[in-house]
Amino acid sequence: MFETVTIALDWLGVVAFATTGALVASRKQMDIIGFTLLGVVTGIGGGTLRDVLLGAPVFWVTEPAYLIACVLVSGIVFFTAHIPQSRYRFLLWMDAIGLALFAVTGAEKAWYAGADGIVAVAMGVITATFGGIIRDLLGGESPVILSREIYASAALAAAVIFTSLLALGAPRELALAIGLLVRAAALHYGWSLPRYRQRPGRPHEGPR
Amino acid sequence: MFETVTIALDWLGVVAFATTGALVASRKQMDIIGFTLLGVVTGIGGGTLRDVLLGAPVFWVTEPAYLIACVLVSGIVFFTAHIPQSRYRFLLWMDAIGLALFAVTGAEKAWYAGADGIVAVAMGVITATFGGIIRDLLGGESPVILSREIYASAALAAAVIFTSLLALGAPRELALAIGLLVRAAALHYGWSLPRYRQRPGRPHEGPR
Amino acid sequence: MFETVTIALDWLGVVAFATTGALVASRKQMDIIGFTLLGVVTGIGGGTLRDVLLGAPVFWVTEPAYLIACVLVSGIVFFTAHIPQSRYRFLLWMDAIGLALFAVTGAEKAWYAGADGIVAVAMGVITATFGGIIRDLLGGESPVILSREIYASAALAAAVIFTSLLALGAPRELALAIGLLVRAAALHYGWSLPRYRQRPGRPHEGPR
Repeated sequence: MFETVTIALDWLGVVAFATTGALVASRKQMDIIGFTLLGVVTGIGGGTLRDVLLGAPVFWVTEPAYLIACVLVSGIVFFTAHIPQSRYRFLLWMDAIGLALFAVTGAEKAWYAGADGIVAVAMGVITATFGGIIRDLLGGESPVILSREIYASAALAAAVIFTSLLALGAPRELALAIGLLVRAAALHYGWSLPRYRQRPGRPHEGPR
Repeated sequence: MFETVTIALDWLGVVAFATTGALVASRKQMDIIGFTLLGVVTGIGGGTLRDVLLGAPVFWVTEPAYLIACVLVSGIVFFTAHIPQSRYRFLLWMDAIGLALFAVTGAEKAWYAGADGIVAVAMGVITATFGGIIRDLLGGESPVILSREIYASAALAAAVIFTSLLALGAPRELALAIGLLVRAAALHYGWSLPRYRQRPGRPHEGPR
Repeated sequence: MFETVTIALDWLGVVAFATTGALVASRKQMDIIGFTLLGVVTGIGGGTLRDVLLGAPVFWVTEPAYLIACVLVSGIVFFTAHIPQSRYRFLLWMDAIGLALFAVTGAEKAWYAGADGIVAVAMGVITATFGGIIRDLLGGESPVILSREIYASAALAAAVIFTSLLALGAPRELALAIGLLVRAAALHYGWSLPRYRQRPGRPHEGPR
């Protein structure tokens, strides 16, 4: 039963991210191929990098249904992107959902592949953030991803909590549920971290 | 005999893309090392990603002659880039040639490595487009690649037709010839796909 | 004994690059997670790409201490980035040190993995430059990296000299020392290469 849950969450994450990629394409008024490329890259990018770094076979090469799903989602968005009241808000929500799911399933895959705890956390963060980073680079958005605090912090929190619980021997289901709950709480309450601030009287330096 | 043809096409693609990389370097007035880096990355980038995703040994690590060819091409462009009447048009042509060849040879390599049809198509598109994407990101061009419709669409068309013919059992030579012909026709007649358009009365939304 | 030296140099390179990543984060006033992500990516990015291309296990997956070091360095920079008189100059120096070390240790790893001479040189350059390229792309700096001549040229010079000496049968220690010395001399004397210049009377062409 649990296997099924993990797989379902993974699929949900892929669909959510593919949707955000296609939404960025619609904001840039690309053609349907642009939609598809951006949808596919965003949907499978994070998991691809995770698999390559782990030396595992890339998941969509062995299971092409993921690829097909991203293509379908992109096509659907192409014809329906004008429907939601605010595409931008919809994009943010899809992004948050994908992030939460991938942070946990990414860490899980690395953990069960025998990786160290901190490596599993890193893989969760990579899986959760890489697709969106590529999406923004290709879509010509300034890669502000790292300065949107909720983004990476939340992925990290979910991955850390999930992996810690696994390492402590908690049952997988519990770890997964708590990891996702923390992510939801962070979103709901707008938790964020302090940012680095220039000390007063320090002029900005350097040519770039 | 056919082996030789495939290898020759692959080489031609590498040389064409290396040329476009070096031409972007000349537009940015880089030094000779910048020419070489951009030429090498553009020439071998797509095939490198394809091999990594397939879990195959990276082609230029086992066959360094490809690397050497990119270096030589970049050097030649450094000393001759002022000759063509219009470097920009020359760049577009080289790009189109490289794209056509890589879409087909990329799909072919994946197909004969045992990948599924849709994965072979994806590998063709990746091989054909990734080098140019990296070139534009590194060269500081806005990555408009996805909005130049002819670009990805043509790579996709060539890869789809080639792979479909292979899957249907057509002889490799025929599939290759038709794949390339479609690409040439698309270029010649300027075939393109409809783009997503904002519906009237919808203001642009969101902060980014 | 020599093993220890190589490992120490590799560690020094990782720390130097992680520092530059965190310094870019401080210039962008990111939160502590942004510091960590940028520090980690810059510190281990080059070596990661090298390992993936060589088909070797990624070094920080098998040896997570590197990952931990990058996290610690990023945290330290978060709390001390206001101390140096000029963060920008400090960043340049750290970058130069990391570059010199990685160009040599990157080429060395490829060489002892059985790669061809030119492939070893390419791996040196990749290891030395990729982390910084990713840092600049993610940090939203225009990727001018290829136009800062000292950058790639110096990495290339160090990698070429080191690999040539190895190929000629020189003892590893000597090759390493000379490779680093050349890099230091290039920095000290400001050696650079001629850049491509527009010929007079040639208007800038093309739409991009």
